[in-house]
Amino acid sequence: MADVETKTFPIEALREFSTRTFRHFGVPKEDAAQAAEVLASADLRGIESHGVARLNSYFDMLTLGRINPKPEIKVVHSTLSTATVDGDNGLGLVVGPQSNRIAMDMAEKAGSGWVSVQNTNHFGIAGYYVLKALERDLIGWAMTNSTKLVAPLWGAERMLGTNPIAIGFPGKEEPPIVIDMATSAAAYGKIEIARRRGEPIPEGWAVDSEGRATTNPNDMVEGGALLPLGSDRDHGGHKGYGLAMMVDVLCGVLSGANWGPFTPPFALRQEIPKRSVGKGIGHFFGAMRIDGFIDGDSFKRQIDDYIRVFRATKPAPGTNGPLIPGDPEREAEKWRRKNGVPLILPVVDELRDISQKTGIPLE
Amino acid sequence: MADVETKTFPIEALREFSTRTFRHFGVPKEDAAQAAEVLASADLRGIESHGVARLNSYFDMLTLGRINPKPEIKVVHSTLSTATVDGDNGLGLVVGPQSNRIAMDMAEKAGSGWVSVQNTNHFGIAGYYVLKALERDLIGWAMTNSTKLVAPLWGAERMLGTNPIAIGFPGKEEPPIVIDMATSAAAYGKIEIARRRGEPIPEGWAVDSEGRATTNPNDMVEGGALLPLGSDRDHGGHKGYGLAMMVDVLCGVLSGANWGPFTPPFALRQEIPKRSVGKGIGHFFGAMRIDGFIDGDSFKRQIDDYIRVFRATKPAPGTNGPLIPGDPEREAEKWRRKNGVPLILPVVDELRDISQKTGIPLE
Repeated sequence: MADVETKTFPIEALREFSTRTFRHFGVPKEDAAQAAEVLASADLRGIESHGVARLNSYFDMLTLGRINPKPEIKVVHSTLSTATVDGDNGLGLVVGPQSNRIAMDMAEKAGSGWVSVQNTNHFGIAGYYVLKALERDLIGWAMTNSTKLVAPLWGAERMLGTNPIAIGFPGKEEPPIVIDMATSAAAYGKIEIARRRGEPIPEGWAVDSEGRATTNPNDMVEGGALLPLGSDRDHGGHKGYGLAMMVDVLCGVLSGANWGPFTPPFALRQEIPKRSVGKGIGHFFGAMRIDGFIDGDSFKRQIDDYIRVFRATKPAPGTNGPLIPGDPEREAEKWRRKNGVPLILPVVDELRDISQKTGIPLE
Repeated sequence: MADVETKTFPIEALREFSTRTFRHFGVPKEDAAQAAEVLASADLRGIESHGVARLNSYFDMLTLGRINPKPEIKVVHSTLSTATVDGDNGLGLVVGPQSNRIAMDMAEKAGSGWVSVQNTNHFGIAGYYVLKALERDLIGWAMTNSTKLVAPLWGAERMLGTNPIAIGFPGKEEPPIVIDMATSAAAYGKIEIARRRGEPIPEGWAVDSEGRATTNPNDMVEGGALLPLGSDRDHGGHKGYGLAMMVDVLCGVLSGANWGPFTPPFALRQEIPKRSVGKGIGHFFGAMRIDGFIDGDSFKRQIDDYIRVFRATKPAPGTNGPLIPGDPEREAEKWRRKNGVPLILPVVDELRDISQKTGIPLE
């Protein structure tokens, strides 16, 4: 971020602004605070694309009545360890945390809990849900499908979202391992940044509208597609494609939500899909009791050992050696809690625009 | 395979030979047949590296008493939907199927079942377990950790196995979606093939013993390492690394097995790890009742629709368009059931060697 102009806000100011914006649309107090917490978590952890930078899209969707500010979230089907939740077209930032709690409650009783969610909307960062599970001493899983952006291997059009997978494992003395990854080779945000700067993107990130490999970010943005993790056949692009499909089926098909190219758009500029095959988008949450498998304390000691062993890996030339998944986000959070969250000026402008329309001050 | 010399065997001959070889070491009749079935499944599905090509390693390990031919497989810990199994150092080809059945039995009662396995050995192809779940109308998951071969992103040494993940979803009229993928960029077998042919490997597959990128297969084999799916930082190598770690923790740490660089070797030529942090290697199985979430029939109809929609994706230039995960293996199986399994001559020689030592005829 060093080379783009930013304005820095204390996290509390952003949280307050988000909460009041959601309240403006009649979102109940606790739900508004919950939604703002999920956004703040992204901003703190340095995943700016999923924090207040998205408030503008939520604002638009709520303004147009395309998201229900007061959903009645319901379990529509369940067994001892599985459930399907209907999010009643609420904010994913509210439906997600509620569904995740249902999975965790089940896990505490049955050893594990697995919840597929239909009729919901974008839920922020997948990592947030895993952190909540860690607070309850559970191994948490979170996935979501999302608006199409990614071509299957050997495809020439957008068919899948960037469909992230997150999972977390607690240590005893060491901080937890937190894996949170999109199943595409690169994030859409990186294409946008290159485009703004007029720079080429690496090979293996995207194809143009005819499915040809490209290093021009405009080719991707203007009707092209991202590539799945692995990029091409030689490097395992079929694996990233398979993972994206796994997430899509668990979140979309298993819950009765939309899937693949029919996943509804999040931003107004995106086209409406040709047909509807379910309700809203879908999430999938899992929670497992560690002591459903092994003594919790010995597990955590082993994770400490694990982390230390991997930190001591012989480094590749020109690097400081491997990181532990979750390290960069934890570092970002430490810094941002102290110094505030730097937002790029286009995002600040969008927030000011919301401020002007709603009368909510942005400080 | 067209350019290497092979000899073709009917699958029944290979299955019989494997069964009798396991019997030779006192493996009980049903277990021997089970183990041979898992190997045959790999040979039929075209994943030759995991079929009878491995019989030689099992032979060595059983000869040296490093695998227990008559394990007492036990559930050592459980809740309604989770369990830990001790495989008593048996063949993974026997412990795996038994543990998978435990997961499926739990799923039928509690909606889902999740089993972590310690004190086991290599279990063949992960896809096999998922196919067994599909036979019982369940969504099956299978993972295993394995001998170190893969460097973490920014690492210069082998720390993780190729740690595969498999999952399967049934269609109604369409064949199932079967995802079965290693979490490395490329399979070790591909490095071996390039080495034998004296050909370079693509960039992004491997590093040499100093952690430097290499296209020379010898550099990898002689003390180098495979790279995780995604290969480098720009292309998401941290994601493949994270997935490999996820598999390792679920299979190894959660069960009380060995993990990471301490995972015991499968073949005699591989070095013994510096220390032991658990028992044997580890697997992780999951099974979920579809009707724990949604009506089974509508799920399968949606999967049919899903498969047809993805098959109709606009193809990238020079391709026939995307495949559905599981297509290539199903095609291979069709062909091989009819025409037999082509084995490369070094594998045939190994089988002949076993035949000579045991007196079991290879026809």
